Amino acid sequence: MSVSTAAADQTVCTPLPVLGRDVLVPLVTGGEVTYAALDYAASAPALQRVWDDVAAYAPYYGSVHRGAGYLSQLSTDLFENSRATVAEFLGCRDDDQVVFTRSTTDSLNLLAAALPADCQVFVFETEHHASLLPWRDARVNFLNAPRTPAQAVETLERALAARDPYGPALVCVTGASNVTGELWPVKELAAAAHAHGARIVLDAAQLAPHHPLDIAELDVDWVAFSGHKLYAPFGSGVLAGRADWLRSAEPYLAGGGASRKVARRADGGVDVEWHTTAARHEAGSPNVIGVYAIASACKALTEAGFDSLVEREQRLVTKVREGLAEVDAVRVLSLFGDDAPRVGVISFVVDGWNSSHFAAALSAEYGIGVRDGLFCAHPLVRTLLGSAPQDPGECGAPEAEPGERSLNAIRVSFGAGTPDEHVERFVGAVKELVKDGAKWNYRTEEGRCVPAV
Amino acid sequence: MSVSTAAADQTVCTPLPVLGRDVLVPLVTGGEVTYAALDYAASAPALQRVWDDVAAYAPYYGSVHRGAGYLSQLSTDLFENSRATVAEFLGCRDDDQVVFTRSTTDSLNLLAAALPADCQVFVFETEHHASLLPWRDARVNFLNAPRTPAQAVETLERALAARDPYGPALVCVTGASNVTGELWPVKELAAAAHAHGARIVLDAAQLAPHHPLDIAELDVDWVAFSGHKLYAPFGSGVLAGRADWLRSAEPYLAGGGASRKVARRADGGVDVEWHTTAARHEAGSPNVIGVYAIASACKALTEAGFDSLVEREQRLVTKVREGLAEVDAVRVLSLFGDDAPRVGVISFVVDGWNSSHFAAALSAEYGIGVRDGLFCAHPLVRTLLGSAPQDPGECGAPEAEPGERSLNAIRVSFGAGTPDEHVERFVGAVKELVKDGAKWNYRTEEGRCVPAV
Repeated sequence: MSVSTAAADQTVCTPLPVLGRDVLVPLVTGGEVTYAALDYAASAPALQRVWDDVAAYAPYYGSVHRGAGYLSQLSTDLFENSRATVAEFLGCRDDDQVVFTRSTTDSLNLLAAALPADCQVFVFETEHHASLLPWRDARVNFLNAPRTPAQAVETLERALAARDPYGPALVCVTGASNVTGELWPVKELAAAAHAHGARIVLDAAQLAPHHPLDIAELDVDWVAFSGHKLYAPFGSGVLAGRADWLRSAEPYLAGGGASRKVARRADGGVDVEWHTTAARHEAGSPNVIGVYAIASACKALTEAGFDSLVEREQRLVTKVREGLAEVDAVRVLSLFGDDAPRVGVISFVVDGWNSSHFAAALSAEYGIGVRDGLFCAHPLVRTLLGSAPQDPGECGAPEAEPGERSLNAIRVSFGAGTPDEHVERFVGAVKELVKDGAKWNYRTEEGRCVPAV
Repeated sequence: MSVSTAAADQTVCTPLPVLGRDVLVPLVTGGEVTYAALDYAASAPALQRVWDDVAAYAPYYGSVHRGAGYLSQLSTDLFENSRATVAEFLGCRDDDQVVFTRSTTDSLNLLAAALPADCQVFVFETEHHASLLPWRDARVNFLNAPRTPAQAVETLERALAARDPYGPALVCVTGASNVTGELWPVKELAAAAHAHGARIVLDAAQLAPHHPLDIAELDVDWVAFSGHKLYAPFGSGVLAGRADWLRSAEPYLAGGGASRKVARRADGGVDVEWHTTAARHEAGSPNVIGVYAIASACKALTEAGFDSLVEREQRLVTKVREGLAEVDAVRVLSLFGDDAPRVGVISFVVDGWNSSHFAAALSAEYGIGVRDGLFCAHPLVRTLLGSAPQDPGECGAPEAEPGERSLNAIRVSFGAGTPDEHVERFVGAVKELVKDGAKWNYRTEEGRCVPAV
């Protein structure tokens, strides 16, 4: 892990201010403590800068695209300028389209609805369900989990070369795993895809918040990400990339905004002329605040110096990994091994512990918010845990009884707003829980693992 | 208009505080004036109460449904309690589902994707495009514009009775027109639909912000509305109603959250078990802030006394209509005539004026934000204007030259946050513009009508 080693010697910068950094939460053992939000991979706190931008804009909010009033025109400019900001943040090519969606899931469902006829999809079983499942009308080729980045490229090449018929194809791949945090060889996979006449979409939900990315340099055809993981939790997401498939597709939603002209026909039917710009897939009033929040986050990360944020995060990654490595009972989940570069997303199990109980104890006894479950990547987590498909592990569902064999995992994740103290508290808590056990009893109630009264 | 006449004698209550109520905008004639937001039918300003609730919650924002941390559990409770609040606001039946979407457009597209096989759809040509267009896979029966509420019911009954085959059918109807503001006879249409074995969805985008509604009392099967028209502009909407079609339908989006269990099969494919609750159609991380904002708005309207808000709005409706009636050159657009009950949405044309120029002058010379165009209801506005389908009127697109015959209309709309001064300024401005003409020249620039420099 050369990146983190290089950065470990120096304090690169302080965390970016986020909302909730001073929130106190109660401990089951008495007293309160500042909340350590270590579930960034699910939803990150809003950057203070994003909140401030939204708060400054909110009184000027107005309907976009169609209003004649001053605030409508201001809001329309803000909305379209946000599109330009996102395009710049992603390094979009001149003819790329930036479509605003509600989330990564929505972006990939939009792309799935825009596949050309007879397009086959190639996706590793290791993907998040948002990348694994949206390709409903297509023939989907699920590829087995690779154990090295090189094997991922080879597996993809072989599968693409063997496709029959050798027609249109799309590869969907994550930039950074939402379970292991490991970076995938996106540029190499894109080259493989293109060499075999396929296109590729990058699920950047976990990459974009942690790493600068450049769509042109990676040479991917599309990028999808969510605002709520990028410190902008106001309900918007992005699909950016090649315009041709999007322009040819049926509008994602049918309604106002996507329709340029609608008229009754003499036979009683209705003729519709749809837009061919991004508006084609943005029917309904756009979520101006959500979109502006994403643009604000893009600017904040860029202006803070994204490279120095990466260095700082890598220092935290090292701190967590070195801390967990000192605990024999902890097994960190990994596809690509210890040396693989990764972002601040780390999953693990603890021998002799039910993961849900462990996560509940971290919350109730230490004020630390992590996640337990299968992280909407069931096949990957089951592969990493060595569980059978019929094992009952499920996102967030605690097992009935503590057991030696974990069916769920625990995930700790962090980013630009995380102070060192949070990861230090986390490492200390893991060590203490493993050494001394929980101070409290926990039970399952309405699908949650909670302290027993 | 008995409702408004009864209310005209008394000051019912003051407007609810909204964001932007003190915003100053520049006038082309020099100086500044507080902005009069009179485009509520497109997007209403946020209630101050909604903003305050969102601001108070934002530091406590966390990932919902799966996180073990304190803020995740708090956010999950807030999210699910918001669902209960919306259900109560709408008067939902016990077995109704409340699904959170991004907008009315999204809600109706979701329902369109949940139609049973061979379901026919019945929709009046007078609907907003969001109600007119989403039914892509169904056979759609477009009904001609009725000229009375009774005619609407008769037209629908006749069409439903004559359907061939006499199979599953859905009626989609607005509660209040987004062009004329006129109320539709929803209860009678629902009775007609049910009498003929059809179901009915209420497009309440323009009704919910202006009128209490009760899904059980109206006996409609579903209701759809948007947060951004209900003073909660954070990117969320609602589809509420019968669970059966929703439960049987393919998940609206495929991804995490909607999937309960995902496993590789021995043959390499993937098995998915989907949720059967509202989560089935809410894949991806939910927009917690947007949903909470809607719940906050529902509470605010209820607690303010929705009936008294209606009375106050009716007083403003009367003020605008009486003011416009004094101007010979103004023609108010109406389907159902002067006596029809209506909400605070009024469209009109001015003889000798290009509507876009008129709207631009209201903004630039009076600080009044209205809308010009066809309001995403092209067939209705063309019918009301007597234009031909090929006429070039288009949402927001100013005509090339002022002409005597309007191809677009002007819409003024208001609601719970509108002070009397705004509508008084509007009426005064219309009279002054018609009498004295604009003080400035306007030209078309990038699809907008703006003051010529």
